[in-house]
Formats: sequence, structure tokens, C-alpha cells
Amino acid sequence: MVSPNRPTVQALQPSLIRKLANAAMNRADVIPLWFGEPDKPTPAFIREAAKDAIDEGQTFYQPNLGIPPLREALANYMNDLYSLRLTADNVGVTPSGMTALSLALQCIVAGGDSVLVPSPVWPNLPAAAEILGAQIIRVSLRPRDDAWRLDLDELFAAAQPNTSALLLNSPNNPTGWMLEDDEQQRILDFCRERDIWLIADEVYARIVYDRAYAPSFADKVNEDDKYLIINSFSKSWAMTGWRLGWLTGPRSLMKTLEMVSEFNFSCIFAPTQIAGITALGEGEAFLRESLLRYRAARDLVAETFAGLPRVVCPLPSGTFYTFFAVDGVTDSFEFARRLLLECGVGLAPGAAFGPQGEGYLRLCYAADLSVLERALEQMRPLLR
Amino acid sequence: MVSPNRPTVQALQPSLIRKLANAAMNRADVIPLWFGEPDKPTPAFIREAAKDAIDEGQTFYQPNLGIPPLREALANYMNDLYSLRLTADNVGVTPSGMTALSLALQCIVAGGDSVLVPSPVWPNLPAAAEILGAQIIRVSLRPRDDAWRLDLDELFAAAQPNTSALLLNSPNNPTGWMLEDDEQQRILDFCRERDIWLIADEVYARIVYDRAYAPSFADKVNEDDKYLIINSFSKSWAMTGWRLGWLTGPRSLMKTLEMVSEFNFSCIFAPTQIAGITALGEGEAFLRESLLRYRAARDLVAETFAGLPRVVCPLPSGTFYTFFAVDGVTDSFEFARRLLLECGVGLAPGAAFGPQGEGYLRLCYAADLSVLERALEQMRPLLR
Repeated sequence: MVSPNRPTVQALQPSLIRKLANAAMNRADVIPLWFGEPDKPTPAFIREAAKDAIDEGQTFYQPNLGIPPLREALANYMNDLYSLRLTADNVGVTPSGMTALSLALQCIVAGGDSVLVPSPVWPNLPAAAEILGAQIIRVSLRPRDDAWRLDLDELFAAAQPNTSALLLNSPNNPTGWMLEDDEQQRILDFCRERDIWLIADEVYARIVYDRAYAPSFADKVNEDDKYLIINSFSKSWAMTGWRLGWLTGPRSLMKTLEMVSEFNFSCIFAPTQIAGITALGEGEAFLRESLLRYRAARDLVAETFAGLPRVVCPLPSGTFYTFFAVDGVTDSFEFARRLLLECGVGLAPGAAFGPQGEGYLRLCYAADLSVLERALEQMRPLLR
Repeated sequence: MVSPNRPTVQALQPSLIRKLANAAMNRADVIPLWFGEPDKPTPAFIREAAKDAIDEGQTFYQPNLGIPPLREALANYMNDLYSLRLTADNVGVTPSGMTALSLALQCIVAGGDSVLVPSPVWPNLPAAAEILGAQIIRVSLRPRDDAWRLDLDELFAAAQPNTSALLLNSPNNPTGWMLEDDEQQRILDFCRERDIWLIADEVYARIVYDRAYAPSFADKVNEDDKYLIINSFSKSWAMTGWRLGWLTGPRSLMKTLEMVSEFNFSCIFAPTQIAGITALGEGEAFLRESLLRYRAARDLVAETFAGLPRVVCPLPSGTFYTFFAVDGVTDSFEFARRLLLECGVGLAPGAAFGPQGEGYLRLCYAADLSVLERALEQMRPLLR
């Protein structure tokens, strides 16, 4: 039996979602709504672009932070969306939003630091800091008036002298919670005052229902701010498997990110990057269609839950998740296991998203209505 | 001006090769022999396999450490090559040899540790440990009797009480040096005795000239050894740009590696993995042809250098590099700059591979003979 040297690595626990999925290994009939990914493959026009690049023999090493045309396309995309004046030197391409987060934290977080993380939250956000030896300070999101809220005074009061970063995920996985512009401005002011890095995971920026895009820190920061914004192609363009994301940050930090990326992944497959350029350039129609599907799916789930008095479900402002509580359920893993084994539906247990998520379940509704109807029907005996 | 918090990250320096390449930004006529990659695109049969998988819509998330058919194919490949009895649970797929190294070190190395690294060596090997806060102890390879050697007693004497790992790269980039079986056994015995992790970078395992494959730690270790072997598809199958590598290690460590990979890259594009399966299954003929090309190239370079009395060049046993000294040259970066600007040939300065490499230059001869002949001719005025 060989174990890793590092105590923080020794202490890592397997994801509760994965642990649950293992329980259904031998069942082919499970409706899988547990993972956070669209149900459709990447659109054909994006796939074709990658295939053309493979045909052209684009199989050599590439620059660390992405091929220049993709960095330019990303700067233009951010500029058009948020009315900014970024240059290609403000963005770095990464092999996934996850890697973007890991790179950002490697520059910032050291053992002995603490980081602030509003929770429930995608577990990888705090874990990526924890693995670097940081202590995690969770601040609770709370459901109020049928939506999730963050009390900013509570957040600010939680900061410690050794707090080096604030990790924010808005629109939030798993709750759908979303920061408003004025809240973002207050948070930025706080980070400036306390010299705390702001790491904003905005991978669901385009998956929102009451406006064109989610409020972003991108139109509030400047070149002197200690910030990095994490984005990904995964959710907007159904490209989860490709592993393509990007960081937006001050130009003066990009040389460092370039060097750190050399020692993490070195570079990214050119055909994947060209697929990304195509997604940015021609992907808006696909995004609009996807949003129509997700909205219909969200409304179906919300209406069904409204007819189930035991289910409490704040309406998500963004993402393609509902995060709901069931009256009487206190052990979300156990309840998810029952939903899996008795109803044949795979949901993510809320405890996977931190102690603040206990008692809840996450359902990914990026699926066909017929599939969702069937899943909801199958779960009814345990939810009513 | 924003800088990273972490001193080890602040202290990072850009690669000397990259710094040199920047000096030739506006020159289209440079013969580029500075990077370590084959000159040909990936063979068409491997590219076709990836395209088929893209057509099939294999664009979703995948398991952390690789799709089961690739892990099985890798175990079989290792078993066939080295007469082993590994299972798929002994191997984990990674998005490059670089990432494999980073993952391995994240499990093992913490701030305050020291690691042993025979040098000259691929700079990313020590850098990946340095970025985690480790102190690097370099032990010199030395040219003797027309080949590079490592004095094992010197290596063992350099180990400190805080030494957590030995990082070995054999066949070695940049020198072509190669450990023999009996030396590997002595090193393994030493690591066992001193409880030091053995990290063996064997990405050039198949690029050797006097036998079928390089000696490997794979046929000497067992399930109780603290070891990880790093391999990559990059060099053997001309797949540098794809980002595909693998780790071989004790089965008991794989659960940890799986979790650490979740927080680094999460998973790898399925079409890339399927390309890897195809390379393993059908790539031996390509590998044989490549070796014939590299051998002819190596011999051309060696013969030319033999006619230049100022050039000292131990014959490489493996890899596709020659690492040569030029009498009177003490500043390899400056000399590489002159070769670039006056002769139009891009070589890597030896100083990029550690202080032990100063005075040397690395030439990558994975190129057509006609290109190499032209490069050697153009460099002649500065080498004779």
C-alpha cells in the first residue's frame, strides 16, 4: 500500500456524485441528471472546424496561453458582450475552466492562507485551493423570498488577515444564485480595500433567463485590480469534453500565467482552439436555441415541484440546475441513493456542494422535456 | 502592475529557448531545430481515428484518468514491451507528460522538501518541483569516453534528510544519456532504503539506437515501491500537439491520482484518447520508420561535427538531440543568438538545461536530411 506524501492530498475524498454513480454501475436504465453538462453533443459546425484543422496537420506544439487568433477572438467576444476595450494580452486560453482556476490559484494561494468561498458551490472551487494548502472559509448562501441570497456584510466580516482570495461562482452551481451589478461593485471595493484577490468563476455567464447575460466583474475591474475571471466553452457551446476555457485578467499578470501554464499543461491542441474560434464566431444561434430549451426545462421542473408541497425550490436565475429541498430529508446522499435505486433517477446530493448544501438535491435540466417528464414522474413517489 | 502573491511564482523566469525565439520574431527564414518535436505532422491513420470519434459525437465528459479502453491498451502496451503483468489500474492517462509530472509532484512534494535532479535536464522537470516550493539539488552528468555518465555514488551522496523525490529523465533530454539496467537497479535500491520517491520520465523510451527500447524502471519496481513512471505519446508517435501522456504506478496510488487530476484538468477529450489507442495498436511501423530517419539524421550530424575540431559531441544513445560543446564558447545563450542571427539556425542554448548545460547547444535532429545539411552548412562559419 503506497500513499502520497502530502497530508492535504492524503486527506482528499472522492466526490459524492461519483460515489453515488458507482452505486448504479450495473444499472443501464438510470436517467442521469447528476452531471453538469448539456445532453447534446457539440454542434456539428464546431466539430467540423476541428476536423479541418486535424486534416491540415495542426498537430504541433502551440504557444502556452493559446494561439493568437483565439486570444484575439476571446478579447473581441468579451469586448462585444460587456462593452470593454480588452486586448489579446488580457486573456489566456486554458485546457478547461478547471485548469484556469488551478492556474489562478497557483499564482496566488500558499499554505497558511485562507480563502473565502460562498457556498453551496461547485466542490472543485474550494478543493483547488485546499490542495494548495489553503484553509477554506465558507460563507452561506441562504434561500429567501424564493431565491438564494448572499449577505455581503456577513461575507466581508468573514475575511481574516491571512485571507488571500475570494472565490466567487455566479451564476452559481448548484443554486442558480446570481450576483447583481451593485453587489459586484461592493465586493470589488472590499477586495481593493483589503488587498484580496478576486477569482470570479463566470462559466455560466451566458446561461441566464431574465436578461442577455449575467452581471460580470469584467466591466468593473481595471488593469490595477488583482482579479482573474474564469470562463469556459463547456456550458455555452456544449463543449464539456473538449477541455477549453479562458482566463481574463490584468495584462501585467499574463507573463506569469504563461510560465505557470508551461509547467502545468504547456499548450492546447490546435484543432480544439480552432473549434473555440468557430464557437465564438458562429455559436450565438446555438446558444439562443439552447436557452429556449433550458428555459422550457426549468419551467417544467418548477411547475412540477410547485405541485409537490414537500419540495422547496427557489427559482434559478441562471445555470441549468435546480437545487431543491425535500421536507424531512436531512441526509442528501442517502436520499439521492434512494432516488437512484428506487426511482432510477441520478441526482447530485446537496452535501457534495459543502455543508450548506446538505438537505438539498441538484437536478441538471439540460435534457429533453420527455426525459425530464419521465424522471419527474419516476421520482414522484419519493417526493410527494 | 499586478504581480502574483507567491514568491516561487514571482521568481519564475521565461525559458531561454523562448527568449531566444523572440529574438527571431521577424525572420521567416530561420531553420528551427530548437524545439523538441518531430518535424512531421501526426500520421494520417491516427488523425482519422480522432476525426471518426468527433463525428460520432464523443464530446462529453470522460473519467478522470482516461477511458477504460485506453487504460487497458496502455497496460497491454507496457506488458508487451517490458514483459510485465500490469492491469489498467496501474496506469492513468494525463493530458501530456508535463501534466503527468505535475500530478505526480503534487502528490509528493511540499514546500521545505528537496528533490534530486541529474542535470543537464529538460528544464520543466526541476521547475515543476520548484513551483511547489521544493529546493532543487542538481547532480552533474559528465561527458566521459565519448558519452554522458552519471556517477551514482555522487548522486546518492547528494541526498539530504529532507529529500522526498529523485527526478530522473532517461533517455535524457538534452544529452541523450541513458541509464543501464544495473544502474537503475542500484538507484531503486537506494530509493527503497532511503524512502525516496522515484519519478522516472521515460518519454524517450522508444527513441533509442542500439537496442529495441531503453532500460526502464517498469520491469524492476513492484506494488510496494514509491514510484511513478511518466510517458507520453508526443515523441514516439509525433503527437506533441495533442497533449496525451500517461503515468504508470502502484495501483494503491491511482485513487489519489484520480482525485488530484479532477482538480487539475478533470478529464481528456475522448477523440484524443481514441487517437492514442490507435497509435498504440497500429503505430509500430511508423515508429520503426521514424527511428530510421532519426538514426540517419544523428549520423549526419555526428559525421559533420567529427570534421569540425572545435566541436565536442558525445554520441547520443537515445532521444533525437545532440548536445555539443564548441571550444571557446562559454555563453551558450549569446552563441545561440549569433547562430540564429548570423547563420539563420535556431538551436537551444545549453544553459536552458541548468548550469551543467552551460557551454553546450542542443540541436533537435528530428528533421529531413536536406534541412539538416543546410543548417549544418549555414552554421559552419561559426563552428569551424
